Amino acid sequence: MLNTALNNVHKLNNIVLIGTGLIGASITLALKKTHPALTVVGIDRDEAALSGAIARGAITDAGSIADIANSDMVIIAIPVRQIPQILADIAPYLAAHTIVIDVGSTKADVIVAARVALGKRLGQFIPCHPISGREHHGPLAAEASLFQGKKVVITPLVENSDANLQVVRALWRLTGANVVEMTASTHDAVFAAVSHLPHMLAFALVDEFASRSNAKTLFEHAASGFRDFTRIASSSPEMWRDVALNNRAALLAELDAFLVKTAALRQAVAESDDTALLALMQRAQTARGQWLSGQLDQFNDVPLNEEAR
Amino acid sequence: MLNTALNNVHKLNNIVLIGTGLIGASITLALKKTHPALTVVGIDRDEAALSGAIARGAITDAGSIADIANSDMVIIAIPVRQIPQILADIAPYLAAHTIVIDVGSTKADVIVAARVALGKRLGQFIPCHPISGREHHGPLAAEASLFQGKKVVITPLVENSDANLQVVRALWRLTGANVVEMTASTHDAVFAAVSHLPHMLAFALVDEFASRSNAKTLFEHAASGFRDFTRIASSSPEMWRDVALNNRAALLAELDAFLVKTAALRQAVAESDDTALLALMQRAQTARGQWLSGQLDQFNDVPLNEEAR
Repeated sequence: MLNTALNNVHKLNNIVLIGTGLIGASITLALKKTHPALTVVGIDRDEAALSGAIARGAITDAGSIADIANSDMVIIAIPVRQIPQILADIAPYLAAHTIVIDVGSTKADVIVAARVALGKRLGQFIPCHPISGREHHGPLAAEASLFQGKKVVITPLVENSDANLQVVRALWRLTGANVVEMTASTHDAVFAAVSHLPHMLAFALVDEFASRSNAKTLFEHAASGFRDFTRIASSSPEMWRDVALNNRAALLAELDAFLVKTAALRQAVAESDDTALLALMQRAQTARGQWLSGQLDQFNDVPLNEEAR
Repeated sequence: MLNTALNNVHKLNNIVLIGTGLIGASITLALKKTHPALTVVGIDRDEAALSGAIARGAITDAGSIADIANSDMVIIAIPVRQIPQILADIAPYLAAHTIVIDVGSTKADVIVAARVALGKRLGQFIPCHPISGREHHGPLAAEASLFQGKKVVITPLVENSDANLQVVRALWRLTGANVVEMTASTHDAVFAAVSHLPHMLAFALVDEFASRSNAKTLFEHAASGFRDFTRIASSSPEMWRDVALNNRAALLAELDAFLVKTAALRQAVAESDDTALLALMQRAQTARGQWLSGQLDQFNDVPLNEEAR
């Protein structure tokens, strides 16, 4: 049915994949599984990423920007900071039927760049963000199953046609992902909280200990709690530097809220306020248990103000 | 050889286990594996914990404080906050040859309580802290292998005899643990950093999100990074409230250092200082990689001031 949806709505035969790393290569591997005749031309500055993607079967061949003129879809799977330049580069080659998607972790900034770069082709750009772990890098780590059961957030523009949106939804469903839609500003606020903030805190904690004069003793005694808490501090520094700066306003709001909360916890410790401390820990333990067991109806549900798209 | 050590140094035939939960029951299960004739009397306020420990074979029978008079060793495996009262309760029953150990996550506070409660028997008390995950609770979760390959920190007192220390070291080695020794103040400073602080931050983050008006949306989009970062926020609130308050000074120092570090990271984001952000993230990623691969010699190694024991 999904295949039919894809074929009916749009003849998706030629894809250009810009960025043949883990995410991009995993998308095309997943699509080729149900769509073996798909032609995927790969573009990447990194020769090793290109040859890796060919070896994995994620791309058919290496190509160039000019190949976009003959493509049905362009998938931009590069660090968010490089997206504005790439959008400007591809704009002159975009045919009227070609759909463009990205996979960036921030969305409002990418949309601003698309408005600047794409002009009358803006409606052909559909901003996407697959939520999938990225501790590993490169096409050799790519898996057709990477998005299976994961969420993919689409933040549609008012300029997007329903037909194009249908194609992109069908594409992600083919990878096994669950498609969620929200505005770019909601996306950026939500992920500043649940993803970008914890990454910052994990990087900060590891760097704090590494900078100590007794760092060796500290790391010698760090155990599984520390290991899991800091797992995301093994993520790509370049990617997370870009995410932090491209989602600056929302991340600053989250950092401030967390600093206030932690200062309150600090005060409870300083004052030996065992009631306040126990209450905070009990609320957290309970909430996490509800989250893990899918009891989301236990939580407050007043949505953020939905700004105009 | 270890068995021989245990038998030669001390006839360890009768143990009283105070607190028959996960940690206590796992210790005696491990000891009974190599020492099947061991008699273990269990004491616990919680009838279910007692019958669970009997069912698991971790204790021979339930008993009372008076049984301590006939015991070779008392293992105190209860929340740290209850240790002072228990030490006072057992003091009148302690024979001259009986060794007492605890398993509390903080050590200086327990030692103060022991000095107050035990008087001339102080040398018989050897403070211990096995470093093992504690997300699950109760004797039914107990495993003889819980300490296999894990660290156990002993913080000896100057009053401890070498003979008693040998017995306790041998006991922990029988459980498969690696024994490490340091002063109580070093222990409390090190674990305030690598364990207590991350627990506080994880509890704070989950409580922060749970308190939001859009909590449901946040938890709906939280993924594996958030899951691992907050795993320790599923730990026992009562236990961690006690740890925070019993290691208050060291924890406050760590909270302050982390607040300063996070404020600096916030400033780098606010100023779009990509060089500072990238440098921090690269240092953290590199340090975590060195830690995971055991390259501890890469780290600074100036020990904390070792205060008098």
